[in-house]
Amino acid sequence: MKDRIFSILFITLLTGGYCFAQTGQTGFFSITDDGQWQKAITTHRLAQFPKIHKDGRVWFQYKAPATAQSVKLHMGSDDYDMQKDSKGLWNVVLTNPKPGYQVYWIIVDGTEVEDPGSDIFYSNGYRTVLEVPSPGEDFYLPKQVPHGDVREHWFYSKVTGSFRRMFVYTPPSYEKDNSTRYPVLYLQHGAGENEVEWTHSGKVNFILDNLIAEGKARPMIIVMNNGFATRPGQDGQALTGNARWAAFEEMLIKEVIPDIDAFYRTIPDRENRAMAGLSMGGMQTFTVGLTNLNTFSHLGIFSGVPTNFSELLKDALQQGPAFNQKLKLFWTGAGTDEAAFINRQKELQELLTKSGIRAQYYISPNTGHEFQTWRRCLREFAPLLFRQN
Amino acid sequence: MKDRIFSILFITLLTGGYCFAQTGQTGFFSITDDGQWQKAITTHRLAQFPKIHKDGRVWFQYKAPATAQSVKLHMGSDDYDMQKDSKGLWNVVLTNPKPGYQVYWIIVDGTEVEDPGSDIFYSNGYRTVLEVPSPGEDFYLPKQVPHGDVREHWFYSKVTGSFRRMFVYTPPSYEKDNSTRYPVLYLQHGAGENEVEWTHSGKVNFILDNLIAEGKARPMIIVMNNGFATRPGQDGQALTGNARWAAFEEMLIKEVIPDIDAFYRTIPDRENRAMAGLSMGGMQTFTVGLTNLNTFSHLGIFSGVPTNFSELLKDALQQGPAFNQKLKLFWTGAGTDEAAFINRQKELQELLTKSGIRAQYYISPNTGHEFQTWRRCLREFAPLLFRQN
Repeated sequence: MKDRIFSILFITLLTGGYCFAQTGQTGFFSITDDGQWQKAITTHRLAQFPKIHKDGRVWFQYKAPATAQSVKLHMGSDDYDMQKDSKGLWNVVLTNPKPGYQVYWIIVDGTEVEDPGSDIFYSNGYRTVLEVPSPGEDFYLPKQVPHGDVREHWFYSKVTGSFRRMFVYTPPSYEKDNSTRYPVLYLQHGAGENEVEWTHSGKVNFILDNLIAEGKARPMIIVMNNGFATRPGQDGQALTGNARWAAFEEMLIKEVIPDIDAFYRTIPDRENRAMAGLSMGGMQTFTVGLTNLNTFSHLGIFSGVPTNFSELLKDALQQGPAFNQKLKLFWTGAGTDEAAFINRQKELQELLTKSGIRAQYYISPNTGHEFQTWRRCLREFAPLLFRQN
Repeated sequence: MKDRIFSILFITLLTGGYCFAQTGQTGFFSITDDGQWQKAITTHRLAQFPKIHKDGRVWFQYKAPATAQSVKLHMGSDDYDMQKDSKGLWNVVLTNPKPGYQVYWIIVDGTEVEDPGSDIFYSNGYRTVLEVPSPGEDFYLPKQVPHGDVREHWFYSKVTGSFRRMFVYTPPSYEKDNSTRYPVLYLQHGAGENEVEWTHSGKVNFILDNLIAEGKARPMIIVMNNGFATRPGQDGQALTGNARWAAFEEMLIKEVIPDIDAFYRTIPDRENRAMAGLSMGGMQTFTVGLTNLNTFSHLGIFSGVPTNFSELLKDALQQGPAFNQKLKLFWTGAGTDEAAFINRQKELQELLTKSGIRAQYYISPNTGHEFQTWRRCLREFAPLLFRQN
């Protein structure tokens, strides 16, 4: 141990204070700014990095303490060595980052830090995020179309014994005609997220604004709740089995839906109520949605078919084609790069097809368990909702 | 240099891997949990720290890499040494933290990191934040009263050439009676913040919900814009003099107000329009508000009297008491612990009094340039708005 520390110390002294050997770099970082670099939309007003080149490369820069010996950037499942430039700033250029909403962080001598130049958001804890343009895809970007509002809506839940917040998208026309009532989609986030994520990362409002402007989706209200709900005293407990979503289900059915129907101009019936969710939210939709078909008539499961799907479908499978009368839309979607969810979706498809139960199955090309999959799922799912035929 | 590094290395080895000498600690951290500790409201669902004791102490805990030698907590203008406990986690207990919305971070061997257990928010860059209870003050906490919504509202600004977001508080009654129209307060953030801060940190919605429920304030719409507005090509430039707020003023007067008056049920006249702001937003109110008295009839400056206030008041001072007819409410407030703004407020008071111009001056006890001051300013200011007498 003592010898190893002495060796590292000698290497450190010989390399002039920072250790190229550790980062695999052989010289100072240097790049010419050819005028084709622009700040990412997630880069702060006062920051210059991350920058995105017209050819798709992303340039990160980080100011570490002068004593730092190893600085890396972590994105996806990879660490990328950063190199010091002549000003002592650490840099790395990624040539082919995945498009969409990407989470990353920086590692300074083993300590994970966030990039102060970019957006930081809650995603399995607070992490730095970067929006990487996706060539040919702009369905989730703001356009010159009428915009709906996303409302932060507070309520007190007796089930959880706490004040809670939900986000509610109201379509652009909501404010224009005070007599029109709207169908409602209840849309849930994943296990690493909270009620704000479908707006912030999912771009739910822009996706719907654009679909509505193109006449592809019916104007609808979208309600996004925090999927973590525990009864007083259960906070922090790992709930399993039927108890896992029990408080969430009771809160959603007995508190949230009546509150929404009382506060907003909804069409308060089953035919005009849908539930969907991503990952954990998809599992909640599969569990809570299927057992509340007197409340919901359309269900969407984005990368969220649960492992016990055949058990949850027992009643439906017994009914066979008769079940098709109860559920107007049974929709699942997943990305090609998330094998577990794609495989489970295929198994579900085989089981339902065999039993004569109608459903729709979407596969997002070249995306994994990430928001680019779920943005596309919403783009495909929303137009199918609340159709009369 | 070589000798000094060897010495540090020997000390490190002798003390078992971490260097008490650097942090000024003499032993392991140890505290008995007496059952009186509760998670702060800013502490995450899955985290246990920061915790707040019934007696007001705050306990922070951080997991640093095993190699970390010095871990400190930075809050206010002080660094507090953290101590390792028997599990290798770093701890510190603050006995008398300032109440309200406090910003802090952790310093691991010189590298600033955020606390993964607490909320992280934009405040001069992304920083960890902690809500410290203020004994006897609950006017900004959610209560069992009707709640208004805070809406994320998007628009395209031709002035800035970009899609922009504002937040709009609509009072609880807004959804109930579709024929009622409301007065509007335009409320601006400070230089380290953005359009979301008045809701997230300022608790604007809870303060108004509570004031309205008590009958102390008139139900009103509150519009919160991003105060940084630059024309295309000006991004990142430091604008001075008249150019400093020119794009913001043009955007506010020519785009935001018409958009708000078209989209929401406002009373679209001068008598029912106010402007206020904190710090930079107060200076914007002083500058933009005073030169647009055909648009605004009430102005509120929270910790934001600008240095050139007498120059900006030239026209008003010439008019003397006649000016009182033009401005229904001229209101300033600041905290006792922010000397510069308190002093400027006093100088303003002397100047206006001498000239026969009416204004109101509020001083928040024991608070500085921080949200506890601005929450109180809003509590004092909002009840005075849009009164008929």
